[in-house]
Amino acid sequence: MNKDLSSLRIRDIGEQGLLERLQRFCPPDVIGDDAAVLETLPNQSLIVTTDMLVDGVHFSDVTTSPEDAGWRAAAANLSDLAAMGANPVGITVGLGLPGDVTVSWVERLYTGMTECLQKYNVPIVGGDIVRSPITTLAITAFGQAHPNFMIRRSTAQPEDVIVVTGTHGGSHVGLELLLHPKIGQHLKTEEKAALITAHQRPKPRLDIIPILQKIRESQPQVTVAGMDSSDGLADAVLQICRASHVGAIIESHKIPLPSAFQEWLTPEKSLEYALYGGEDFELVLCLPLEPALKLVQQLGTGAAIIGKITPGSTVILQYQQAEIPDQVLSLSQGFQHFGQ
Amino acid sequence: MNKDLSSLRIRDIGEQGLLERLQRFCPPDVIGDDAAVLETLPNQSLIVTTDMLVDGVHFSDVTTSPEDAGWRAAAANLSDLAAMGANPVGITVGLGLPGDVTVSWVERLYTGMTECLQKYNVPIVGGDIVRSPITTLAITAFGQAHPNFMIRRSTAQPEDVIVVTGTHGGSHVGLELLLHPKIGQHLKTEEKAALITAHQRPKPRLDIIPILQKIRESQPQVTVAGMDSSDGLADAVLQICRASHVGAIIESHKIPLPSAFQEWLTPEKSLEYALYGGEDFELVLCLPLEPALKLVQQLGTGAAIIGKITPGSTVILQYQQAEIPDQVLSLSQGFQHFGQ
Repeated sequence: MNKDLSSLRIRDIGEQGLLERLQRFCPPDVIGDDAAVLETLPNQSLIVTTDMLVDGVHFSDVTTSPEDAGWRAAAANLSDLAAMGANPVGITVGLGLPGDVTVSWVERLYTGMTECLQKYNVPIVGGDIVRSPITTLAITAFGQAHPNFMIRRSTAQPEDVIVVTGTHGGSHVGLELLLHPKIGQHLKTEEKAALITAHQRPKPRLDIIPILQKIRESQPQVTVAGMDSSDGLADAVLQICRASHVGAIIESHKIPLPSAFQEWLTPEKSLEYALYGGEDFELVLCLPLEPALKLVQQLGTGAAIIGKITPGSTVILQYQQAEIPDQVLSLSQGFQHFGQ
Repeated sequence: MNKDLSSLRIRDIGEQGLLERLQRFCPPDVIGDDAAVLETLPNQSLIVTTDMLVDGVHFSDVTTSPEDAGWRAAAANLSDLAAMGANPVGITVGLGLPGDVTVSWVERLYTGMTECLQKYNVPIVGGDIVRSPITTLAITAFGQAHPNFMIRRSTAQPEDVIVVTGTHGGSHVGLELLLHPKIGQHLKTEEKAALITAHQRPKPRLDIIPILQKIRESQPQVTVAGMDSSDGLADAVLQICRASHVGAIIESHKIPLPSAFQEWLTPEKSLEYALYGGEDFELVLCLPLEPALKLVQQLGTGAAIIGKITPGSTVILQYQQAEIPDQVLSLSQGFQHFGQ
């Protein structure tokens, strides 16, 4: 990066000047008209999701480099598409910036964003840059999915099992480690790094789409319900059950946890982070046992069947130890954790 | 509107509470998953545009009611779709709000937005509401257009004529009237109202799409270049010429002006507002003479052929009076007006 850039500010080059500098992050053929033009596949539905992120509310220079803020923003939107079973087509980026933000900060944000997007061949196809008293990032991502192969929250059925695509709790603990480095002094360096990476560089689980497609090609009648666990694993199970008018039993000891948790945290604390931590951007999927076993096998490390869908409307958390009573989960309970 | 609502603030009901109240502005079938699902026509390209609007920069309670701010935001995005020849499919709305904004203000914003959208059967299909120190609105609009029937900036050709879809200058003068009511004391009430409406309730020119489609059905070889005049008429002509590597001659006396201008403003001032005022959200289209005449006839009041595309790269403004020399227009000139 050019040394002079580090002190150059938005007000020195204006929104138009910044826009020209940022064009290198976008494919050249989508720029230059009032709107971007994209080709989509026939017989697919358009899937759209949008997120707004505000400096000091959703990201902060204290814990998040601009590259990581960019990565996380892109990953969160791609995760929403993965949660619908949709292949991403492109994203638009709206950016509100105070004049004293450095050009370098914005270029680092775009670098992180495109590092994540390029892993999945997703272009930035449009955007808007405006003056604002507070740095604000508005991302809209769109994807496409075959109408019959979409993942919805509302289609879980009794006898489906519940699959998670990876470990839970790591992202929240990673953030705690960034805020209070002392609490991680007994962790191995690589364990600490893995937890911090879980927070800074979450991976959207778009890898499920070709796996699910193969399963459905041999078993077209299989319906997959689900959503992502961005607001926590408990929230995801509860939202799916509410939308599908079903209940669930979660076996707490089957929830995959980051390896560092085992010797470092009590089982209670580990479970609390896994259920309510949030921002792991894994998927929670409900489908019949047989295809679920295939899915878990192909997803590899971390994926597991953690419970099953039941008739009724109660979501029950069971413990392996007979002496701990079953616990009924509720949405309000989730939000009380961590003072949310 | 409920009287109690006028004092209820966002912090009293939270972002989640607000989201629930705003669901009545969205079709029920698109809510409830990680992303919205939209059906599109086969063999159409996806057209995407995004805008970010910040309180105090792009709108202000001084000149704009929340209803008008909502209308204008929706209209600006639909105008970008019209400028591509695209039929709108849906929009997403991201909203950043300080806690002391009233619920009533937000509902009035959504009322104005949906008043505009409903005229064109466009649903709000998704959104995000977050806390922010400054009210911020991020809109992304989606449309679809047949690849062969799209309007681009880069396809204007020498011998095309230049059509505008309506009058220019009204929106900027309308804003001046709101800021300095005294300047309009000699205007008739209905003239003043028309200019203020031009600013507060601009209409996206989506009406051109079926007209152009009919013209092209009988003359499929016709290419239409163009863009909207949101940054002023001069800017639109210059942007089209730059993208198409052509020049243009504009006959200044042919530019349609709001009727109030004639007796009230000098010809010089009228022309300045028409060329550089901006935000009229009309379209500037380049096409051969014969279909252009059909188009102007069907568009009715205000539409006119104002000049023609030429080889070269110079954009010349001609005056009817022989004693006024031709003027060469340039992009930098446009931006200098009004201290932009």
